[in-house]
Amino acid sequence: MSKDLQDILYSEIPLTRAIGIEVKEYTGDSLTLCAPIENNLNHKCTAFGGSLYSVAVLSGWGLVYMLLRQHDSAGHIVIHESNTKFLRPVSSTIMAKCAFDSREQTDRFMRTYQRKGKARIQLQSHVYSDTDIGVMFTGSYVVHT
Amino acid sequence: MSKDLQDILYSEIPLTRAIGIEVKEYTGDSLTLCAPIENNLNHKCTAFGGSLYSVAVLSGWGLVYMLLRQHDSAGHIVIHESNTKFLRPVSSTIMAKCAFDSREQTDRFMRTYQRKGKARIQLQSHVYSDTDIGVMFTGSYVVHT
Repeated sequence: MSKDLQDILYSEIPLTRAIGIEVKEYTGDSLTLCAPIENNLNHKCTAFGGSLYSVAVLSGWGLVYMLLRQHDSAGHIVIHESNTKFLRPVSSTIMAKCAFDSREQTDRFMRTYQRKGKARIQLQSHVYSDTDIGVMFTGSYVVHT
Repeated sequence: MSKDLQDILYSEIPLTRAIGIEVKEYTGDSLTLCAPIENNLNHKCTAFGGSLYSVAVLSGWGLVYMLLRQHDSAGHIVIHESNTKFLRPVSSTIMAKCAFDSREQTDRFMRTYQRKGKARIQLQSHVYSDTDIGVMFTGSYVVHT
């Protein structure tokens, strides 16, 4: 399933190839994406903010995509609003991990989506600078049929 | 000066080439960047959120860069925090315009930077979907020597 997600990112969002995004790990509760620093350098030889944002927003997007698939469901997933805090520069592989808050969160989200054909979910992604958190990203995603 | 900014974006942030960012207009008070939709499509054939973010964050970054140059100054400009509201899909050329709030804002910012060697400025960028606003971006940028 992770391989499918990677294929979808590359075919449907071509810029992910330039960024070099790869699916690193999917556990059912979390999704980790990574990208090489070389493709994403800025003027300070650390990761460009737009690249960090892209990997973070897609970690949430991908996690919702996988959740829908697990429920034999599908839909249009769009980012509605986000807040991004850049805590420290990222100077090695970009690694973004998005995890659901709880089982209750996903159950509530899926119930609403199945009933109304539209639902919203707020997710946090962390982008790591080695073992420290480099970026804290909060995204509100809307899914509709 | 606009040509210099474009050269700097391409040489120092290579992903801007893949996005296809171009400096459209610099007035002294505002900077408009654009990028072709073709390079930045998502799964819905509208602009990918990471691309919209990149063009928006660089419109603010570039505006601060030009302000420093106008004052024969320089510094490291980094994004510290941002909030991004996606109001409607962008399905034609991505066009991001960032403008200073007022002359007082830039005067205060430059005074602080010249006195302390570090200053912060909050800027709004709008990304247009034809004539409507597609994305509202607020970025807090830190400049240091």
